[in-house]
Amino acid sequence: MAVYTDVADSDLAAFLDAYDIGTLVSFKGIAEGVENSNFLLRTTRGGYFLTLYEKRVAEADLPFFLGLMRHLAAKDVPCPLPVEARDGAALRRLAGRPAAIVTLLDGVHVRRPETHHCAQVGAALADLHKAAADYSGARENALSLEGWRKLAAATRERADSVAPGLALEIAEALSVLADRWPVDLPRGVIHADLFPDNVLFLGARLSGLIDFYFSCVDFLAYDLAILMNAWCFESDGAFNVTKGRALLSAYHARRPLADAEVAALPILARGAALRFLLTRLYDFLNRVPDALVRTKDPLEYRAKMRFHAATTSASAFGLSP
Amino acid sequence: MAVYTDVADSDLAAFLDAYDIGTLVSFKGIAEGVENSNFLLRTTRGGYFLTLYEKRVAEADLPFFLGLMRHLAAKDVPCPLPVEARDGAALRRLAGRPAAIVTLLDGVHVRRPETHHCAQVGAALADLHKAAADYSGARENALSLEGWRKLAAATRERADSVAPGLALEIAEALSVLADRWPVDLPRGVIHADLFPDNVLFLGARLSGLIDFYFSCVDFLAYDLAILMNAWCFESDGAFNVTKGRALLSAYHARRPLADAEVAALPILARGAALRFLLTRLYDFLNRVPDALVRTKDPLEYRAKMRFHAATTSASAFGLSP
Repeated sequence: MAVYTDVADSDLAAFLDAYDIGTLVSFKGIAEGVENSNFLLRTTRGGYFLTLYEKRVAEADLPFFLGLMRHLAAKDVPCPLPVEARDGAALRRLAGRPAAIVTLLDGVHVRRPETHHCAQVGAALADLHKAAADYSGARENALSLEGWRKLAAATRERADSVAPGLALEIAEALSVLADRWPVDLPRGVIHADLFPDNVLFLGARLSGLIDFYFSCVDFLAYDLAILMNAWCFESDGAFNVTKGRALLSAYHARRPLADAEVAALPILARGAALRFLLTRLYDFLNRVPDALVRTKDPLEYRAKMRFHAATTSASAFGLSP
Repeated sequence: MAVYTDVADSDLAAFLDAYDIGTLVSFKGIAEGVENSNFLLRTTRGGYFLTLYEKRVAEADLPFFLGLMRHLAAKDVPCPLPVEARDGAALRRLAGRPAAIVTLLDGVHVRRPETHHCAQVGAALADLHKAAADYSGARENALSLEGWRKLAAATRERADSVAPGLALEIAEALSVLADRWPVDLPRGVIHADLFPDNVLFLGARLSGLIDFYFSCVDFLAYDLAILMNAWCFESDGAFNVTKGRALLSAYHARRPLADAEVAALPILARGAALRFLLTRLYDFLNRVPDALVRTKDPLEYRAKMRFHAATTSASAFGLSP
C-alpha cells in the first residue's frame, strides 16, 4: 500500500507521448502494492496500470517479470499485459525510476476468501505453472534458504522485541529446514506471492492474477505451499481443511502432484511460513514512519509455522493420501 | 493520502445492492485525501468515487457537504454529484462508517501549476461563490480565529521542537489577526481548501473541483486568499506576482471584488497562512506512524505567513490598485 514517487505533469506528458494509447483522462495513485508506486491511468482508449519500480525491486529483474507476463498473457493466463511504446520497449523510465504500463484487469480482490475462491485459485496456479513451463527467462529465488539465513541474521538482535523467544524459534526452524529442505522436486517458474490481494474476481469468477514481482524459478510445490498458507487459514489462526482440500485438489486436477511433492508439502509449507515471517519481521523492525506502508503482522506467520511444524503429512491439509 | 478502512466483500456487495448503478467491475483504494478513505469504484455503468468518512469529519456536517455538491452540480459547477440509492438517500453506511458514492470526474491535478492554471482556478472559484449564493445550508467555519486559538493552544508546548521560536511567532500572529480580522466583508459558502490537488484539468482545461469537506460559510475573499496562498507561491518560497495577478484578476472579472475585500486581502492571506501552518503543525506533532498519511510541511506556511506580514496592500499580489 504505497505511492512513493510523485510524478510531475511535464514528465508524465512526455512519458505518455512515447505510447500510442490515447490522451490522458485521469491519473490516480493507488493504495496498493508494498514494493512499488502504482497509478491508475485512464486515457481516451481505456484503463491502464502504471508502475514505477522502487529501489527494492532490482532493475535487472524487470525484463524477467515483464517477459513472464507477456508469455503468460499470450497463453490466456489472466494477467496484465505489458504495453509497448511506439519504439517497442515496454520498460521505460519516469521520474528517475524504471516504469512500465500494463493493461488493467477487471475484478476485485476478495478480503475473506471462501472455499470456492480457494478452488479457483488452486486451479489458476496449476494453469500458471503449466503455461510458464516453456518460458525462457530465469531468476533465482532470492527468498529461499539462503535468503532466510540473511533475514534471520538481520533480525536476530531485535526479534525478541516483537515476541520473546522469537529469535531462537526462527533459528531452530531454519536449522530444521536446512536439514530437510527438498532438493529434487519439479521446478519451474513460480508466482511466489499469490496472496488474496493479488487475485481478482469478477463476481464469483476468477478474473486476474497480478503482481509478478516476486516470481522466480523454484519448486512448483513450494508455490502451492505459499498459496495454501495465504488462503486456507482462518483469521482466528485455524487451518480450514475444507479450503485446503478444495485448493489442493483443484491444483492436482490440473497438474497432478508427484508423490514426492505431496510428501514434501508439510516441510514446504513450514518454509513458506518462515519466509513470510522473516520478511514481515524485517519490514516491521525497519519500518519508516512516513513511508505510507502498512506493515503486516509477522506473528500471523509464526502461528502458521508452528502449525506446520506439528504436521507430518499432507492429509492434515485435506489432501487424500 | 490514505485508506483507513478496509471493506469486506459481503459488506460492499450489500452496500452496492442499494444502488441502481450496475454490478461491480473493480474497486481500488486511492492514495488521496487526508481526511477520509477513498475508493475508485467501477461498475458495468462506469466509474464512481466511494468515500468512507473517517472520525475527523463530523457526521452532522455531511448533509451540508453533499447538499452543496448537489446544488453546485445542478448549476454546472464541475464538481462530483452525490449518487442517490434507490431509496433516495445519498448518505449511507458501510463498514461502520458514513459513506457516499459520487460521480467520477475526468481530469488530473497539476503538480506544478502554471499561470494559465491560476487564471482558470480564480475564475472557477468566483463561479463557485456565485453558484453557491442561494444554497440554503449553513456550516460555521471551525477553522477561523476561534479554531486557530484552540490549535495554537494544542501545539504551543511542542511547536518549538519543529522550529525554535515557532510558538511565540504563532502567538504574535494570532494577536495581530484578532485585532485586525475583518468583520463585515461579503460572506457566503466557501470551498476553504482549493489546493492544486483538489482541482482537475483535462489537458489544459479545468475539468473539476473536488473535496468539499472543509466547505463552510465565511468571507468569500478569505477563500480567495487561501487559493492565492496555495497556487501562487513557487517551490522556493517566492510569491509569483504574475500568477497572483492572473488568479485575482480572473476572479475579479467574474465576481468583482469590493474595495473593502481588496483592502482586506493581505490580512486575510496572513490568516489563511496561519490556518494551514496550525493544522499542519498539529498533524505533524500528532502524526501516527502507521496511519499511511504523508504529513505536510508546516514551515511552508510559516514562510507564507511571514510574506503576508510584510505586505500592506493587495498590489503586492499583482492586483492593480
